[in-house]
Amino acid sequence: MTFQKVIAYQTQPRSTRNITADISHIIAQSAIRTGICHIFVQHTSASLMICENADPDVRRDMETYMQHIVPDGDPMFLHQDEGPDDMSAHIRTVLTNPDLTIPISDGQCALGIWQGIYLWEHRTHSHQRRIVVTVQGDK
Amino acid sequence: MTFQKVIAYQTQPRSTRNITADISHIIAQSAIRTGICHIFVQHTSASLMICENADPDVRRDMETYMQHIVPDGDPMFLHQDEGPDDMSAHIRTVLTNPDLTIPISDGQCALGIWQGIYLWEHRTHSHQRRIVVTVQGDK
Amino acid sequence: MTFQKVIAYQTQPRSTRNITADISHIIAQSAIRTGICHIFVQHTSASLMICENADPDVRRDMETYMQHIVPDGDPMFLHQDEGPDDMSAHIRTVLTNPDLTIPISDGQCALGIWQGIYLWEHRTHSHQRRIVVTVQGDK
Repeated sequence: MTFQKVIAYQTQPRSTRNITADISHIIAQSAIRTGICHIFVQHTSASLMICENADPDVRRDMETYMQHIVPDGDPMFLHQDEGPDDMSAHIRTVLTNPDLTIPISDGQCALGIWQGIYLWEHRTHSHQRRIVVTVQGDK
Repeated sequence: MTFQKVIAYQTQPRSTRNITADISHIIAQSAIRTGICHIFVQHTSASLMICENADPDVRRDMETYMQHIVPDGDPMFLHQDEGPDDMSAHIRTVLTNPDLTIPISDGQCALGIWQGIYLWEHRTHSHQRRIVVTVQGDK
Repeated sequence: MTFQKVIAYQTQPRSTRNITADISHIIAQSAIRTGICHIFVQHTSASLMICENADPDVRRDMETYMQHIVPDGDPMFLHQDEGPDDMSAHIRTVLTNPDLTIPISDGQCALGIWQGIYLWEHRTHSHQRRIVVTVQGDK
């Protein structure tokens, strides 16, 4: 059995947003008890991340690390059409991925206790981001 | 309902290839209307990437970045059996992943307008690469 | 049809463990012939990797590379609560992912001949790690 829903977020510039509750809500709506939930961002400069959900410094350090490893406006990049965060945002998305699949057990997101699902906006401006959520399994 | 197909490509040395049309074709063959499409490269030195599909400079910069962050023939690597691109190709594959799942809506690949699916050959020679495509969902 | 099982491992400090045989065993138990197998680590400092399975130097180089690209105890990190391997383990997990999906063909893991499935412990101490395995497809 398959259940699908599209959600959209207006993101904050270069930030992470905890979307776990919204995903849990869609899983509950699906009434699927055992299966998987596939989450997909329809963009090439925003991604999904499973991250520690207790200490906000973890996400801050994740952002610090990304800026360190993928410098904005690096002269090695040819593609700078939309500014210094353009190509770096594409690379950050490829390194962290626009797709994520999580298990469903007993009708719920089977995440570990410290895991949260985050939408990561890699551009330095706010954007509208569409996410397709597909739930598959047995009732 | 499950539909599966194996496709193979003779790659160009260290290059990306847009395989979106081939994936769309398999989804159409499956006749599945709502679900997911799982794509899997059966190799450890080629990977799959969702990438911006309009400006070829984006993929060129992606390649430049990878060569920068994972230098070929780095003396820190012990495994160099097949040349300087051997270990770096394995690392590039782990960073970008051999598996990818995309949603299906209304019988089609539910990609964003700027998203393409690319097979990324990380070796500096041409190789035959096998990809298993599994479509799951409701008709 | 969906089949789900939870497995747990007591890991060795900062090491990789080949779990391919255990995953194959669960697929056999499911009796599913064609489909996908989703594997998910319920932690934020251990991940899953498809890696070359013949030469142990490949995994050693993978570890060397990760220590090089994500230095333990880097002063740029604020989150160091549990020691120098705390934040680096979270980053390593995001770069390599806690989720992995592989195809099933003819009732078996459809891996390439050189591919193995590895659980990667990123902390420098042993931990108990839970993995949820969900098999979906047709009998």
